[in-house]
Amino acid sequence: MTTVTKESNVDVLIVGAGPAGYMAATWLARFPGLKVRFIEKRDGKIFAGQADGIQCRTLEVFQSFGFADRVWKDANHMLEISFWNPDESGKNVVRTGRIPDMQKGLSRYHQVVLHQGWIEGYFRDNLKKYNGATVEHSTMPQEMVIDESKVNDLEAYPIKVTLRHLNEEGSHAEQFGHKVANGLFRSANLVNAKEEDNGLAGEDKAEELEVINAKYVLGCDGAHSWVRRQLGFQMVGEQTDYVWGVLDIVPITNFPDIRNRCAIHSAEDGSVMVIPRENALVRFYIQMKEIDRQADGRVDRAKITPEKILAQAQKIMHPYTLSYEEIQWFTAYQIGQRVVDNFQAHDRVFILGDAAHTHSPKAGQGMNVSMMDSYNLGWKIGGVLNGTLNPKVLSTYELERSQVAHDLINFDQKFAKLFSGRPAKSAADEAGISLEEFHRVFELSHKFASGVDVEYVPSPIVAPAAETTQSLATNIPVGKRFNSFKVLNQSDARPWEFQELMKSDGRWRIVVFAGDMLDKDQKARVEKLAEHLDKEDSFMKKYTPADKPRTGLFHILTCHSSPRIEVELHDFPKALRPDHDYWSVYVDDESHHEGHGQAYKNYGVDPKRGCLVVVRPDQYVSMVVELEEVEKVEKFFAGCLVPRK
Amino acid sequence: MTTVTKESNVDVLIVGAGPAGYMAATWLARFPGLKVRFIEKRDGKIFAGQADGIQCRTLEVFQSFGFADRVWKDANHMLEISFWNPDESGKNVVRTGRIPDMQKGLSRYHQVVLHQGWIEGYFRDNLKKYNGATVEHSTMPQEMVIDESKVNDLEAYPIKVTLRHLNEEGSHAEQFGHKVANGLFRSANLVNAKEEDNGLAGEDKAEELEVINAKYVLGCDGAHSWVRRQLGFQMVGEQTDYVWGVLDIVPITNFPDIRNRCAIHSAEDGSVMVIPRENALVRFYIQMKEIDRQADGRVDRAKITPEKILAQAQKIMHPYTLSYEEIQWFTAYQIGQRVVDNFQAHDRVFILGDAAHTHSPKAGQGMNVSMMDSYNLGWKIGGVLNGTLNPKVLSTYELERSQVAHDLINFDQKFAKLFSGRPAKSAADEAGISLEEFHRVFELSHKFASGVDVEYVPSPIVAPAAETTQSLATNIPVGKRFNSFKVLNQSDARPWEFQELMKSDGRWRIVVFAGDMLDKDQKARVEKLAEHLDKEDSFMKKYTPADKPRTGLFHILTCHSSPRIEVELHDFPKALRPDHDYWSVYVDDESHHEGHGQAYKNYGVDPKRGCLVVVRPDQYVSMVVELEEVEKVEKFFAGCLVPRK
Repeated sequence: MTTVTKESNVDVLIVGAGPAGYMAATWLARFPGLKVRFIEKRDGKIFAGQADGIQCRTLEVFQSFGFADRVWKDANHMLEISFWNPDESGKNVVRTGRIPDMQKGLSRYHQVVLHQGWIEGYFRDNLKKYNGATVEHSTMPQEMVIDESKVNDLEAYPIKVTLRHLNEEGSHAEQFGHKVANGLFRSANLVNAKEEDNGLAGEDKAEELEVINAKYVLGCDGAHSWVRRQLGFQMVGEQTDYVWGVLDIVPITNFPDIRNRCAIHSAEDGSVMVIPRENALVRFYIQMKEIDRQADGRVDRAKITPEKILAQAQKIMHPYTLSYEEIQWFTAYQIGQRVVDNFQAHDRVFILGDAAHTHSPKAGQGMNVSMMDSYNLGWKIGGVLNGTLNPKVLSTYELERSQVAHDLINFDQKFAKLFSGRPAKSAADEAGISLEEFHRVFELSHKFASGVDVEYVPSPIVAPAAETTQSLATNIPVGKRFNSFKVLNQSDARPWEFQELMKSDGRWRIVVFAGDMLDKDQKARVEKLAEHLDKEDSFMKKYTPADKPRTGLFHILTCHSSPRIEVELHDFPKALRPDHDYWSVYVDDESHHEGHGQAYKNYGVDPKRGCLVVVRPDQYVSMVVELEEVEKVEKFFAGCLVPRK
Repeated sequence: MTTVTKESNVDVLIVGAGPAGYMAATWLARFPGLKVRFIEKRDGKIFAGQADGIQCRTLEVFQSFGFADRVWKDANHMLEISFWNPDESGKNVVRTGRIPDMQKGLSRYHQVVLHQGWIEGYFRDNLKKYNGATVEHSTMPQEMVIDESKVNDLEAYPIKVTLRHLNEEGSHAEQFGHKVANGLFRSANLVNAKEEDNGLAGEDKAEELEVINAKYVLGCDGAHSWVRRQLGFQMVGEQTDYVWGVLDIVPITNFPDIRNRCAIHSAEDGSVMVIPRENALVRFYIQMKEIDRQADGRVDRAKITPEKILAQAQKIMHPYTLSYEEIQWFTAYQIGQRVVDNFQAHDRVFILGDAAHTHSPKAGQGMNVSMMDSYNLGWKIGGVLNGTLNPKVLSTYELERSQVAHDLINFDQKFAKLFSGRPAKSAADEAGISLEEFHRVFELSHKFASGVDVEYVPSPIVAPAAETTQSLATNIPVGKRFNSFKVLNQSDARPWEFQELMKSDGRWRIVVFAGDMLDKDQKARVEKLAEHLDKEDSFMKKYTPADKPRTGLFHILTCHSSPRIEVELHDFPKALRPDHDYWSVYVDDESHHEGHGQAYKNYGVDPKRGCLVVVRPDQYVSMVVELEEVEKVEKFFAGCLVPRK
């Protein structure tokens, strides 16, 4: 029996409670008053396996929401990569090198590893703290209709989605008869869409239908995205022949580097990648050389067992022994690299995360790039809905994230090929992959893999070159995320990572590098800027909603370069330090216990003259100008914000 | 109507849910299977005010229980102290100096400030996580009878305590008619015991009586301790004439150092101490010059109002302005320094925290020393109850903590006098306190106030000088807490604070400084030690309960000094690295991202020969010996542990 029991309007419907969905819900919770629904077809039972790598940029973003510390504490920290290759006999693998897992200076964090289920738990706690949306499990969309006549009306709810509430039996993922939890159900490349649907949506199991009229719909529903299929969007790209098995086990082994990230290449039997995890758990990615295939070239998954995967690993890792005390999860996948052909429809329905890009898991990118998709989009939707942001900004989602998705696919193709290839037997063996090349690509990959190198092109929210003066802050690149160095609070001498002060709260940051406040002329420049900010027609007043003049739409952060003890907080104009606010003025000086951040030097800013930097709510740099060039800032905001009514 | 409704046996009854009680419950939760009751006469409503300073050693202990990070994140960090003194006219205060609030190198933490209520919240969360005792509010003890014939019988429950369960009206602290929350109710020195009793225990309000037969009773019930009075113990010490007011306010002021800890001395109007707190809150300690007194010299508390306290602060801080936007709490106290004459009865009933020592609050010691009392006692009671520890060890509680209490009182007398005294007008003004002396004492106080300098004398759990060789580890002083420097995990190169690895889990640490493992002779010494540890009659086997051979009573931590990459984990004998345990062998080497801990150098250990260190479950050092001197270790444990049955 199915009956439509209710119909309602919502601002945002999030489909899919994986990392992309959780990140979206978390962002939207920072925009009070929005009506958000968050649905997930599964019944909420926690499963093992899935993604595990947490990159630097992701940790920075977690920090901006307030829970990076929990991840940092619970996760396994991967500090080092070991390379293992065949010895001269070709029969044994030997250690051929070790490098740090992350270049110095990329971020204040380094990569860590933790099961996806824990990450989702932190999101849930954070959503609770901020009165965010609760996941509605056992709920799947059944039909979506977009009323195109209404997509340009900001007050309308143009997307009608019919939801089906499932009973428990219908929504619990079938595990294909294996005794241990496995990923064959969720694995992106081995299961086709039809099978997945069959697993869940048996008509007789549905209990209840509900209609939701949404302003925006976010398709965060994974590789087999229902939302994507409703829109008729295609995944474009290639499937390779490489097949890999994955084991999450507590190993018994005499392999010495079992707690390092390892790239192990055997002479003839393929490769293993070792990812040590929380507690004594270790994930192994194991290249499967001999595998039964179906007529269409797809892997016959019924024939893949943990025993077969382990046997292959034992061959590759010879002469070291490998068995396990406990197995938590296994899966197998065929590498494919594909990107969706459209990231949005009418800037009303958006495709995010695995729904928009699939690739091999070994570089630990999937979960991270998925969350960064939502991190890019969340504040834009929130700002449009609360009336502060011009809706044309929504088009920057596709502009910015499709580029990242394609970069990711290119990176993954290079990375996966290196991993699945055979090591060169000698310098003359051109078909093989040389050790040197492997090391080099691995090291180069750090910057990309860390997530901090993403650069967004000019748009209404990233000023074009003509409107910004990069030379004023040579190491605060416009279009990239605002990097972090330590500064001291003027009032209490506490050191802070500058980026730490830029919480994900929906506000734009106006970073005033005030320069040398002991210089009379420079101080006058700062005071003139403050005078402008105090004016009734300045951006500070013009766009800030009338009901929140203090928390505001803008957060001014000042950092000066004079010795801290020669300057008092009250030397700064009031526009830069509201009453009771002792957390807005900072200084580039030596701390009592944590050294000197050398912020001006590291940011490439002139310590005499300073500059003005506009930073987006997602910590990306919009523009760099002289302290006097506040008209450029006015022009910039006129292009992306909506004056208050 | 009162009726005895039930009677039961418990291992430990904790009376009073302040910081001392919470710390005791938290420790005992690490000894599974104990029956612990935890009672508090108040009804659990959270109040403002109270203690706020968290010292270095306390943070180290919090870390060992797993929640220092929460305190560190939520607390205000005090990095700097400012001194303000009269100018030459004597009419205005001016800044005369600034110093760091903590000497470098004392601890990996520095002092932070956070309201006591938050700290208690972290304890509650932690107790929940470890299935610890839940606080039973509105429950107060009414009668305690000790059966002295049974105090030497470990199986007996010699202490009979009758509990009274109160209704809500009876247990809610009366606030003496002031509109804002105040501390007059809880303030140790202004309210006498009789008044406090009257506030709670009106006979007609009691609902229910219960009898508990306990093995141990912990009196954590504050300055007016009921447990202490039942035992007839006396507080010994003096009351001074100094009266101080306390305001917790969100100030409106042009005083520039309002976010520093400040010592402000006026010429004639007394002193103010400023303690910036979480968010915009600031605590002011204000010396009250003119105050109405009763016939017995006690302060007439009815006449103390926040307005009077503020007026005094305004006088002292002239020419700066001070008012407030919001007041959270106020109190007043008369400084007294007293220590209880006995810390225990029959080593069955113990007095801890404010029940054992009272003093002035300005050095932020009270809450810290109180928690450290319980931290000292908790593992001893836990160990005796689970049959691993010789009950004679219980006598070390009084031995160790009464010394600390007396040191605290001496410190406080010096500190309070400096604060309450008048500043010298010139070098010739001997009755006044010179600026130089004030700065000097303040700086010297850091080491004491940090809590890391506590030293316990020889006892069954601290080896006497003849049995230990301090010269083998010149900076691991026997009797003091094991200090922390960074070491790297051999298996994954992750840097750890060495002390961080010594969780408060009831285990003794055997720290093997293995020295240079590349040296054949040295390696043989380490192997010989391991051989001993593997023997059936070694302490490792003799005392460890049969049901937990792996988690054990001992935790072996090894740190070697050879270059990490020249040594493999498997080079170490199995006794030092059980199967699947990759977290027992460390190395003193350069980390990838966090520098070199120089542990051997900092601990004063010979990097060639190493040594063996025994560390108590509370991180205090018991002994230092040569790797061969394992017989000394055997002898030491024979003196404090109980062989398994």
